[in-house]
Amino acid sequence: MRPYDIILKKRNGETLNKEEIEYMVMGYVNKDIPDYQMSAFLMAIFFKHLNNEERAILTEIMAKSGDMLDLSKIEGKKVDKHSTGGVGDKTTLVVAPIVASLGVPVAKMSGRALGHTGGTIDKLESIPGFKTSLTLDEFFENVNKYKIAVVGQTANLAPADKKIYALRDATATVDEVSLIASSIMSKKLAGGADAFVLDVKVGSGAFMKDIDSARELANAMVGIAKSHNKEAVAVLTNMDEPLGFFAGNSLEVLEAIETLKGNGDKKFVELCLTLSAWMCYLAGKDSYEKCYKLAYDSLNNGDALNKFKEFIIAQGGNPDVVQKPKDILPISNNFVEFKANKDGYISKINTEKVGVACNYLGAGRVKKEDKIDHSVGLEFLKKIGDKVSKGETIVKLYISENSDVESALNLLNDAYTIGDSDVQKLDIILDIVK
Amino acid sequence: MRPYDIILKKRNGETLNKEEIEYMVMGYVNKDIPDYQMSAFLMAIFFKHLNNEERAILTEIMAKSGDMLDLSKIEGKKVDKHSTGGVGDKTTLVVAPIVASLGVPVAKMSGRALGHTGGTIDKLESIPGFKTSLTLDEFFENVNKYKIAVVGQTANLAPADKKIYALRDATATVDEVSLIASSIMSKKLAGGADAFVLDVKVGSGAFMKDIDSARELANAMVGIAKSHNKEAVAVLTNMDEPLGFFAGNSLEVLEAIETLKGNGDKKFVELCLTLSAWMCYLAGKDSYEKCYKLAYDSLNNGDALNKFKEFIIAQGGNPDVVQKPKDILPISNNFVEFKANKDGYISKINTEKVGVACNYLGAGRVKKEDKIDHSVGLEFLKKIGDKVSKGETIVKLYISENSDVESALNLLNDAYTIGDSDVQKLDIILDIVK
Repeated sequence: MRPYDIILKKRNGETLNKEEIEYMVMGYVNKDIPDYQMSAFLMAIFFKHLNNEERAILTEIMAKSGDMLDLSKIEGKKVDKHSTGGVGDKTTLVVAPIVASLGVPVAKMSGRALGHTGGTIDKLESIPGFKTSLTLDEFFENVNKYKIAVVGQTANLAPADKKIYALRDATATVDEVSLIASSIMSKKLAGGADAFVLDVKVGSGAFMKDIDSARELANAMVGIAKSHNKEAVAVLTNMDEPLGFFAGNSLEVLEAIETLKGNGDKKFVELCLTLSAWMCYLAGKDSYEKCYKLAYDSLNNGDALNKFKEFIIAQGGNPDVVQKPKDILPISNNFVEFKANKDGYISKINTEKVGVACNYLGAGRVKKEDKIDHSVGLEFLKKIGDKVSKGETIVKLYISENSDVESALNLLNDAYTIGDSDVQKLDIILDIVK
Repeated sequence: MRPYDIILKKRNGETLNKEEIEYMVMGYVNKDIPDYQMSAFLMAIFFKHLNNEERAILTEIMAKSGDMLDLSKIEGKKVDKHSTGGVGDKTTLVVAPIVASLGVPVAKMSGRALGHTGGTIDKLESIPGFKTSLTLDEFFENVNKYKIAVVGQTANLAPADKKIYALRDATATVDEVSLIASSIMSKKLAGGADAFVLDVKVGSGAFMKDIDSARELANAMVGIAKSHNKEAVAVLTNMDEPLGFFAGNSLEVLEAIETLKGNGDKKFVELCLTLSAWMCYLAGKDSYEKCYKLAYDSLNNGDALNKFKEFIIAQGGNPDVVQKPKDILPISNNFVEFKANKDGYISKINTEKVGVACNYLGAGRVKKEDKIDHSVGLEFLKKIGDKVSKGETIVKLYISENSDVESALNLLNDAYTIGDSDVQKLDIILDIVK
């Protein structure tokens, strides 16, 4: 077998078998195959794609290139939730306690990715004392005892994907559905869960800008899961505007707590209940409709909030955060406001730019080494369809001395469009793929 | 400017401007752009191609990456002939003396490429004493005095093409028409001629297997020449069977001399006269028809043969080769025969395999360092449409102790198809593109 022949075969649109895909991927990981052959191969895949079987094979090979977690010490069926990423996405902070409160185990390992804000564990680290590094045994023990634990990822999951992703990122071969789906699912498979709820974001703040490409990705991911005998449901959700009221680290924890207290943004609540219900359904708790009702009740009768508090205590965090989040969380007292420059209705938001503005304030990482500022972020006072008057605040910026406020304001100015006529408010749940 | 954005732009099918193409090519040559970005870029070009303007730009940038020869010391209009390569292609050895005998300068610089046999200078080195390394001044002087000189290429022509070609060769991005045409024409432009006759081979022994792709390549090359204000004519010629009677180094010189004496293979003669006529026409000698007549006369009245002898003497070769080629040339006395295993007609020849068989005997180079055996080669006794009886010799193999005779015979056995019914003989000239 020669890398050349495999590149040629894919370039000519032929289907690759397991030996060939494994030869390329592991050859690349082991440095037997040079970067330049792999990048040509990836560009050939960009144009000729992978069929369902090839995707399943690629996913498995990348998953098996590193640790394969064994979650069998955790009682019950383990359902993992994954989001393809958006702006203001604090969903896990609400969904995890709802699901756990219903007796379904939530064993969440999270990486510290680059992004507009930190990841779930960065957000949780806004809570004084909260520990995200548990041993594997402590992790299993906590899940069995409290049905919930969220820790930083220490395992070496899918290193082949990591290496290939870095190359894709440098060679304009990221945005191909087989490669995206295989990349995500390789890490999910290695993570060891039994089933997956996939929150596929669609719109100006998401990787997938339109519903068709999002549906294609959802189908690809669900297909890969099924090929490996794992159940999966993908929920296509709107990312044409930021999610909820806040983006930032402390600010998102604050919003999660308020949501668990029943004061959540309506659409954000709908998203959390939908995802919670699918997780419980896949865990075998009940029908989807019953699960939705159970999740609704848990959120409204305080069970989920209590579970959240239990979870914070279990991982060493200050439990007063639940009662007095604004006192306990490091939230900046300095702010500036982005205001409407005319009367009208918010008609369009380039949500990606809103995310980058958040980054300019210091809420996220551009490079791996960047330190996150937990205190900064954005508060969204007006969303699509909202009426605004000239001079009214659209976004409140929580800033620190290291924030690049000017750039953030310029970006927000680019991001928001104020139209003359009323526009329809956006639905949050766009489609379900299973 | 970032390499990523240029890869993305081409991947999305957009047109690149001069700055962008130059940035990629020279960045790669100067090692600012890594192999893996260049190979992804090349694969994107494979799928999205280059338009006429982009091809002309790429060609110019690659040409200017090295020496640009100045042939102004040579009197008259300089017309270069280029062949895309075939099996038994000793055309230059006949065309050059014909054209020179008509007073049109032939200033030929030839590389020592890999191939089934050596290149023109390797073949000429079969002649005892023949010197292929002249200084540039000696070269100019010889052309001005005798209208003909053939030397080894010492200039550093189009190093960017050389580097990019090596990468294409490893990443399955060779066979794309814009890249092939730009690669060939960059070396031609750097070579400094005023006009070009391009012999584009078509068929089982050529890079272009069918007439449509050959015509596309011809159009691309002629188009590039015209973009640089150079005249060019492409002659599409048949390579579904070996050219003439022989392949090998001494054997091809022998055939060239026999052809100059009027004993040439009819189709080979037609090809030589056609190419000679186009060269003379582009040099401004006369109309194409008149030039053809002049070439015909030169070949038949001995002028071309005399010019060949003059040329051999001028470059230090033993002139007796013209009178007694078989005595002077190192031609092996050992041979084996490839015979027909049944009665019938030669209906098909995989000419590529015939070329590789030649290589197995030692006539060519697989690696740059390989030494050529001038004495070995093949004699083609039967061509397509010829009747054969079982046991009759189809190919005579001139071998040496280093020849892999068994592999060569096996390949010939694969290469030749004997059919039951008569088949039409092939035309040699298939089309003219100008």
